[in-house]
Amino acid sequence: MKDPLKDLNITDLATMEENGDFAIVCLNKQRHSSSSSSSIEEKESNRSEKRRVKPIALDYPKKNGEILSGQYGINLLLFGIALMLGVSYHGYSIKEKHLLSFITTVMLIQLLWMLWYVVRRDRQKNSVPEKDSHAGTRWLRGGLTILALLSLIMDAFRIAVYVGYKECLSPTLGVYPVVHVLHTVSQVYFLWFHIKDVIKTCQTFERFGVIHAVFTNLLLWCNGAMSESQHFLEAHKKRLASLGFINYTGGHDEPHCECAISSCSMFSKSLYYLYPFNIEYHIFVSAMLFVMWKNIGRIIEHQHKREKDGLRVTRLVLGPILGLVALAGTITILVIYIMQVEESLETHRMAISMFYCHGIVMLACMCIAGTLGLILYRLDNRPLDASKNPSRQLDTELLCGSSVGTWLMSWCSVIAAVATHSNPRYRWTILAYSLLLVLEKYIQNLFIIESLYRQQEAVVEAEDQDKEEEEEEEEGGGGGGGGGEGGPSGIFSVSSQVPSCRGIVNQAFTNQENVYVSLNSSRLRNGNVPLCSLNQELQEPPVVPVSQDRAGKPDRRQILRNIAIFLFLCNCSLWLLPAFGCRPQYDNGLEQETFGFTIWTMVLNFAMPLNLFYRMHCVASLFEVFQHV
Amino acid sequence: MKDPLKDLNITDLATMEENGDFAIVCLNKQRHSSSSSSSIEEKESNRSEKRRVKPIALDYPKKNGEILSGQYGINLLLFGIALMLGVSYHGYSIKEKHLLSFITTVMLIQLLWMLWYVVRRDRQKNSVPEKDSHAGTRWLRGGLTILALLSLIMDAFRIAVYVGYKECLSPTLGVYPVVHVLHTVSQVYFLWFHIKDVIKTCQTFERFGVIHAVFTNLLLWCNGAMSESQHFLEAHKKRLASLGFINYTGGHDEPHCECAISSCSMFSKSLYYLYPFNIEYHIFVSAMLFVMWKNIGRIIEHQHKREKDGLRVTRLVLGPILGLVALAGTITILVIYIMQVEESLETHRMAISMFYCHGIVMLACMCIAGTLGLILYRLDNRPLDASKNPSRQLDTELLCGSSVGTWLMSWCSVIAAVATHSNPRYRWTILAYSLLLVLEKYIQNLFIIESLYRQQEAVVEAEDQDKEEEEEEEEGGGGGGGGGEGGPSGIFSVSSQVPSCRGIVNQAFTNQENVYVSLNSSRLRNGNVPLCSLNQELQEPPVVPVSQDRAGKPDRRQILRNIAIFLFLCNCSLWLLPAFGCRPQYDNGLEQETFGFTIWTMVLNFAMPLNLFYRMHCVASLFEVFQHV
Repeated sequence: MKDPLKDLNITDLATMEENGDFAIVCLNKQRHSSSSSSSIEEKESNRSEKRRVKPIALDYPKKNGEILSGQYGINLLLFGIALMLGVSYHGYSIKEKHLLSFITTVMLIQLLWMLWYVVRRDRQKNSVPEKDSHAGTRWLRGGLTILALLSLIMDAFRIAVYVGYKECLSPTLGVYPVVHVLHTVSQVYFLWFHIKDVIKTCQTFERFGVIHAVFTNLLLWCNGAMSESQHFLEAHKKRLASLGFINYTGGHDEPHCECAISSCSMFSKSLYYLYPFNIEYHIFVSAMLFVMWKNIGRIIEHQHKREKDGLRVTRLVLGPILGLVALAGTITILVIYIMQVEESLETHRMAISMFYCHGIVMLACMCIAGTLGLILYRLDNRPLDASKNPSRQLDTELLCGSSVGTWLMSWCSVIAAVATHSNPRYRWTILAYSLLLVLEKYIQNLFIIESLYRQQEAVVEAEDQDKEEEEEEEEGGGGGGGGGEGGPSGIFSVSSQVPSCRGIVNQAFTNQENVYVSLNSSRLRNGNVPLCSLNQELQEPPVVPVSQDRAGKPDRRQILRNIAIFLFLCNCSLWLLPAFGCRPQYDNGLEQETFGFTIWTMVLNFAMPLNLFYRMHCVASLFEVFQHV
Repeated sequence: MKDPLKDLNITDLATMEENGDFAIVCLNKQRHSSSSSSSIEEKESNRSEKRRVKPIALDYPKKNGEILSGQYGINLLLFGIALMLGVSYHGYSIKEKHLLSFITTVMLIQLLWMLWYVVRRDRQKNSVPEKDSHAGTRWLRGGLTILALLSLIMDAFRIAVYVGYKECLSPTLGVYPVVHVLHTVSQVYFLWFHIKDVIKTCQTFERFGVIHAVFTNLLLWCNGAMSESQHFLEAHKKRLASLGFINYTGGHDEPHCECAISSCSMFSKSLYYLYPFNIEYHIFVSAMLFVMWKNIGRIIEHQHKREKDGLRVTRLVLGPILGLVALAGTITILVIYIMQVEESLETHRMAISMFYCHGIVMLACMCIAGTLGLILYRLDNRPLDASKNPSRQLDTELLCGSSVGTWLMSWCSVIAAVATHSNPRYRWTILAYSLLLVLEKYIQNLFIIESLYRQQEAVVEAEDQDKEEEEEEEEGGGGGGGGGEGGPSGIFSVSSQVPSCRGIVNQAFTNQENVYVSLNSSRLRNGNVPLCSLNQELQEPPVVPVSQDRAGKPDRRQILRNIAIFLFLCNCSLWLLPAFGCRPQYDNGLEQETFGFTIWTMVLNFAMPLNLFYRMHCVASLFEVFQHV
C-alpha cells in the first residue's frame, strides 16, 4: 500500500535546512544523491562514514557559508566600482585597461568554475539533481539567448575596432571582447542546462562559485551602465556645444591614431546602439544566478506547476491594440526627438515638450489600467500563495528596489518645477509627468506583485467548497469535541472524532480566515485522509485541474490579460526611449537650475540604469502575469 | 490529561500567516484578542460576524499592505533626499527652511499617529497584546534613552542659537527644535512601552503609521548625516586655507547678523559635538521601528528567552584590559590628531602617519580576536538556531549592508596606494591599513552573525545525548522498519514500531546531521511522546536549564566573552575617531590625487555615515553577544 504519510514533514525539514542548519562540505559528496536508493547497506555505510568524518568537523553551518561567500561577492563588486570611479576621473594613474584586465580575470575565473561544475555534473549522471521549477522559465532563458546574441555582435564590433586601432590601443582591449565571447557562450549554455539545479554537494565551495558568477555579471552590468552614461554625457556636451551653449573640446573615448580598416567609425558608432541589450543581459543573468545561489542546499517542497493555458488569444483585442498604438507612437516620438533635439533651439524645446506630453498620456493610461487590475483583484479577494519561492521573492524586491532610481529623479523634478524662479514653458508639464511617473510605478508594482502572489483560481474554489461543507457541518455539530481540551491559552482544540489519530483545529485561525484548516479538518471528518498528512496539506493546497473553473469567469480573466499585455507593451515603449538616447532630463535645464550640473548628473547617472532595468524587469514580470492570470 | 498535541502546527500556521495571507482591517478589531477565551457562543458570534463582513471585502492581503506602506515610506524618504540635494547645492530656490518645514510636518504626523496608537491601546487594556520578546532589549532602550537626552541638549542649544539670531533667521528654524523635543520625548515613551507590541488590529492603517515613523527617523538621520558632513567639509576647507593650500572664502552655515545673546558661538560650536549622538539615536530607533513593522500581523511562536547569566565577571581580565588600553590609546590619538593637524604641514603629516599606524595595530588585534572566536566555534560545531526572529535577521542585514560604505572607501584607498605616481611617506601604511580594514569587517561580521545565530549550549548537549542513545539503538536494531516502505524517491521512510501513530524519519536528513530527527525518533521509540507532537518539536528544540552545563566548559566561554568585550571596546574606539572629527581620509591627499576631489568627497560622504552606523551597530551587537555567549 502506498502510504500517504511518507511525505509528512518535508516542509518542516526544509524550513530547518533553510534557516541555517548544516551543510556538509565536499567530503560527503555522494550523501544526498545516494539517498534516493534506500537499501540498508548503503545507509549503514553512510552512517559509518559520518562517524569517521565527524571529528574533523568539516561541516559548516549554512548561514556562515552564505555570509562568507556573500561578503566575498560584495567586495569583488566594490573593488570593480572603485576602479570604475578611478577611470571616470580620467586621471593619469588608472586607465581603462586596468579595469578591463580586472574584469577579464574575473570572467576567466567564472569560466573555470563553470567548466568544473559542468564536468562534475556530467560525472554524476546517475543521480538526477533536484530542480527548482520556478527558477529561469523557458521564455526568460529564450529572451536572454537573444540578448546574448546581440552581445556577441557587440563583441565582434569591439574586436573590429581593436583591429583597426591596434597601433595605439592596449592589448587588453583586444583580449577583453574575446574572453567576453567565450564567457557569453558558455554562460548561455549554463543557463539552459544548469540554472534550475539545486546544489547539494560541496555547498560552501559552490556558493563561492555561484556568487562569483553573480557578481561578475553585476560588475559587467555596472561597467556597461557606466560606459553608456559616459558616452551619453559626452554626446550631450557635444550637442550643447553645437547649439552654442557651452564650449567643449574633445572627448575621452576616441583613440589617438588613424584607423587601419575602413568603416571603423561605423563599428564604433553602432556599438552604442547595442549597449542597452548587453546591459540588460548581464543584470538579468545575475538575478537568475542569485536565485540559484539562494537555492543551494535547499530542500525543494513539492512544486505544483501552474497549468499551462496554451496562451489563448481569444478576446485579446483592446489591450494589444492600445499597446501597439503606444509602441508605434513611442517609436515616432523617439525618431522625431533624436532628429529635432540637435537642430535649433526652437526645435529642441519643441522636442522636449512633445516628449513630456506623450509621457503624460501614456503614464495616465498605465495608471488607469493598473488601478483597474487592482480593483478587479479587490472584487475577488483571495489568500495569497505562501509557498517558498526565492525567484518570486527576488522579483518583488528588485521591482521595489529598482523603482528607487526613478522615484528620486521624479521627486527632484517635482521640487525643481515647484521651486524654479524662471518660468520655462514646460514647467507644469514636467510637474505632471513626474507625479504620474511616481504614481505609475507605485500602482504597477502593486499590480505585478499581487498578480505574482495570487493563488490559482481553482485551488481557492476547491477550498471554498470544502469550507462551506465544513461550516455547515460545524453549525450542526456545535464545534465537535472542540472546547473541551483547551489548554492554558485555549487557542488550539482537538477534534476527537477521527479514529486512531487526532485532528487539530486552530480556533484562532479558524476565526480569522480558515480556508486551509477547515479544508483539512473537513476531510479529516470524512475520514478520507489520515491525520498526519494534515500538516503537509496545510502548507500545500492541492491542485485541482483548472480548465473548467477558468471557463466560468472569462470576463474578469480576459480583462486582466488585456491589462497585462497593454502594460507589457507600454513598458517596452518606456524602455526604448531612454535606451536609445531620448533623455530630456539632461536637456530641459529645469533641474540643473535647482540642483546644479554636478548633483543633477549624479542623480541621473544613478537613476537611469536603474530605470532601464526596472522597465525590462517589468516587461519580464508582466509576461509571466499574462501567462498565468 | 494535559494534551501535548494542542500546540501542534502553530509554526505552520505562523508560516502561512507571515507569508502573505489575510490581514483583516479594522472592522474585525476584536477577533484576535477574543480568541483567548474559547466559549462556543463567542465562536458562533465571530462566525456570523465574518459572514456579514465577507461581501464587503475589507480584508486585505498582508503582502499588499506591506508593499503599499513600504512604497509610501520610500517615497517619503526620497522626497526628503531630493530636498537635501537641493539644499546642498546652495542655489537660490531651495533653502534650509524648506527642508526643515518638511521634516517638521513629517514629525508632527508621526506624533499624531503615536498619540492615536497609545490612546487606542489604553482603551483596550483588557486584552493583553502579544509581545515579541526579541525586539528592543532593555539595555538597548536604555542606551537610546541616553542618546535621546543628548539630543534634547542639542535641541536646547539650537533653540538658544535661534533666539540669538532670530532677527535674520526663518521662524522654521525655531519651530523645528521645539517639535523635535516633543518628538524625542514621546518617541522614547513609545519605545519603552510599545516597541515590542505585535499589532493585530487595523493592520493596514498601523502599517502606514509604523513605516511613517521608520522613515521619519531615517529622514532625520539623513539630515543629520548630511549637515554633519557639510560642516566637516567646511571645517576641512578652512583648515586647508589656513595651511595655505587653497583659497577659501566664507561658509554657508553662518547667519548674516549679530547675535543678540552672549555665548552664541559657544552654543553653535558645541552643537557639532552633539551631532554624532543625535545621528545614532535616529538610525537605531528606525531599525527598532522597522522590526515592529515586520512584526505586524505576525503570530509569535513560543519564544524561549535565553537564560540570564547575571553578567558574571569572573576571569574577565584580558579582554577588558586590552580593550581599555585600546580605548585610552585612541582618545590620546584623537586629541593629538585634532591639535596637530591644524598646526604646520610637518605636524599635519605626522598626525596622519600616527593615525594609520595606530589603526593598523588595532585592526590587526581585532582580526586576531575575531579569528580566534571563529576557530573556537569551529572546534565546537553545532546547528544554528533556525527560529524566526526579525530582529536578528535585520541585525545581520544591517551589519553586512553598512559594511559596504567602508569597503568601498578601503578599496579606493588600496587602488590609490598602488596606482599613485607620487610616493608619499604613508603610501604603504595606508595600503596595509585599508586591507586590514576590509579583513577586519569581514571577520567581525562572520563572528557576530555566528554568535547571534548559535544555539544555546544546553539545547545541543541534550540533543547530543539523545542522539548517542539513538545511534546505539539503531545499530542494534539495524534501521528498524526503515527501508521497506520507500516511495518513489525513497527519502522518507516510516518506522512502524510505535503503536497507533507513526514516526517518520527523514533518511536524507538523518544522513546529513540528524540532531533533531533522531532526538524525536528516539523519544518515539521509548514511547514517551505521542507522535503527532514530533512536528512541533522538530521546529522548537526544548530548552533545558542551562547553568550546570555551562559550568562544564568555562574556558571556551570565558575566552569568547573576553573576545566580545575586547571587540566591543575596540569598536567604541573606532566610532569615537571619525565621530569627533578625526578623518585623515580627507587630509592625506593620496586618494584625491587618483580620484579627484569631487569623486573622493562623494565616496566619503557616502561611506562615513555608514561607517559610523556600522561601528555603533557592532557595539550593540557585541554587547548582546557578550551577554549570551
